[in-house]
Amino acid sequence: MEQNTKKRPYLLLSNDDGYDARGLQTLIECLRPACDLLVVAPDGPRSGFSASISSRMPIASRLVSKEPGLTIYATSGTPVDCVKLGLNRYVERTPDLVVSGINHGDNASVNAHYSGTMGAAGEGALQGLPAVAFSLCDTRPDADFEPLKPYLLPFVLRAIEMGMPPFTCWNINFPKAPSFKGVRIGRMAKSRWVEEIEDCDHPRYKNAYYWLAGYCEEMEPEADDTDRWALYHDYIALTPTALDNTDYALLRSLQSDFTKKPLL
Amino acid sequence: MEQNTKKRPYLLLSNDDGYDARGLQTLIECLRPACDLLVVAPDGPRSGFSASISSRMPIASRLVSKEPGLTIYATSGTPVDCVKLGLNRYVERTPDLVVSGINHGDNASVNAHYSGTMGAAGEGALQGLPAVAFSLCDTRPDADFEPLKPYLLPFVLRAIEMGMPPFTCWNINFPKAPSFKGVRIGRMAKSRWVEEIEDCDHPRYKNAYYWLAGYCEEMEPEADDTDRWALYHDYIALTPTALDNTDYALLRSLQSDFTKKPLL
Repeated sequence: MEQNTKKRPYLLLSNDDGYDARGLQTLIECLRPACDLLVVAPDGPRSGFSASISSRMPIASRLVSKEPGLTIYATSGTPVDCVKLGLNRYVERTPDLVVSGINHGDNASVNAHYSGTMGAAGEGALQGLPAVAFSLCDTRPDADFEPLKPYLLPFVLRAIEMGMPPFTCWNINFPKAPSFKGVRIGRMAKSRWVEEIEDCDHPRYKNAYYWLAGYCEEMEPEADDTDRWALYHDYIALTPTALDNTDYALLRSLQSDFTKKPLL
Repeated sequence: MEQNTKKRPYLLLSNDDGYDARGLQTLIECLRPACDLLVVAPDGPRSGFSASISSRMPIASRLVSKEPGLTIYATSGTPVDCVKLGLNRYVERTPDLVVSGINHGDNASVNAHYSGTMGAAGEGALQGLPAVAFSLCDTRPDADFEPLKPYLLPFVLRAIEMGMPPFTCWNINFPKAPSFKGVRIGRMAKSRWVEEIEDCDHPRYKNAYYWLAGYCEEMEPEADDTDRWALYHDYIALTPTALDNTDYALLRSLQSDFTKKPLL
């Protein structure tokens, strides 16, 4: 029995929607039968927090609940803070995988840059662990997570079985659909947010405030090798993501340019 | 005279230390003689804000000053918010370059992920503009920016002259040194933050709070092709940075793996 317990995968879970969000609860529900779970998640919404850290404020943290195979902490910090706190203070052993999500909203294409869900997964990768981010392309609090359920544990077990090269993670997005055609491995689609600023009336000062809004315009909707194409066609999109964001092609061309013509 | 004015480069400046930080003031001082400047910067420190956006709160913004060739706005938002607000509301024409910094602190190696300075430059790249981030490896408010001054305008003019491939930007770090040996184009060094959590006493509740602290441990100090090596050896480090963070090698290997063995 004890040996069997030790063989269960040990996962560190976080998200950017808060420890009580339905996406995270869905993950817990589906993974708990087969894995031991440590959840360290924000105490409220942190959408759009990217890989931000609390550099100038301390982080409050409280134990929400602890039972066999499931411990939950809620913190005042960012998603990345949560992963750092989990790994430095709360883990019982080295996790087999860091799992972030399920995000209520789309983290494909350039959205991955702003995503706190991806921030948490990326932090796992930066700390030397395999890491997976799950997102559903539906921002509603009552989004339907049922169709995702059969896929969550298989993805987690596959990620642990295969492992990941250092400084990489998986960004997995599910389309808003009643069922999925399968899994497509694709690249990050090129897109651009436009018309992003809306004026916002203050009760006393007109237009002194702005809301971020707008929409994401696809720049290559026809390309069939992207995460966006996969989602549009009801596939689950897996985008292999590098934490080494050096542009190696540009590196070689700049080396040549700066050798030919020094800056000063 | 008017024609001459039109030929001056037009730059959008931001940072993550606040509109009144000495690093940004140094940029303004050195670039203003040759360029028209629009500054949209946070109204206070935003270190470690990465590519975060204000998704749930409006952004306040005020005009700090406006004179020929130099307009300054301060906002309650993140560095990325500032770039979005600048491009959507305040620019007079399309900027020739987005410039972020000069950060008071090191944004080389994995630090780039957490950096609000890099967040602002990355947003420029995501919006289709060439973009440069400048950082000095000295976090002190009274850091010495004098040695950097001869390099700032040449870097800016070179970036405009060369342009950049879509979805890329330049991450430029200056070592803390009285003078520099030159410019080295390098890749992001692999490193890892360790011992990151310090307990923090609350006046009433012991150890209910934590500070992020720790230090960045180099994983490949001997490799001479990295930004970190360049900085250790008193070179200016230019890291060409990709906003498409797809890992293409992993993509090919996962496509093969998932074809051989489907998930379900």
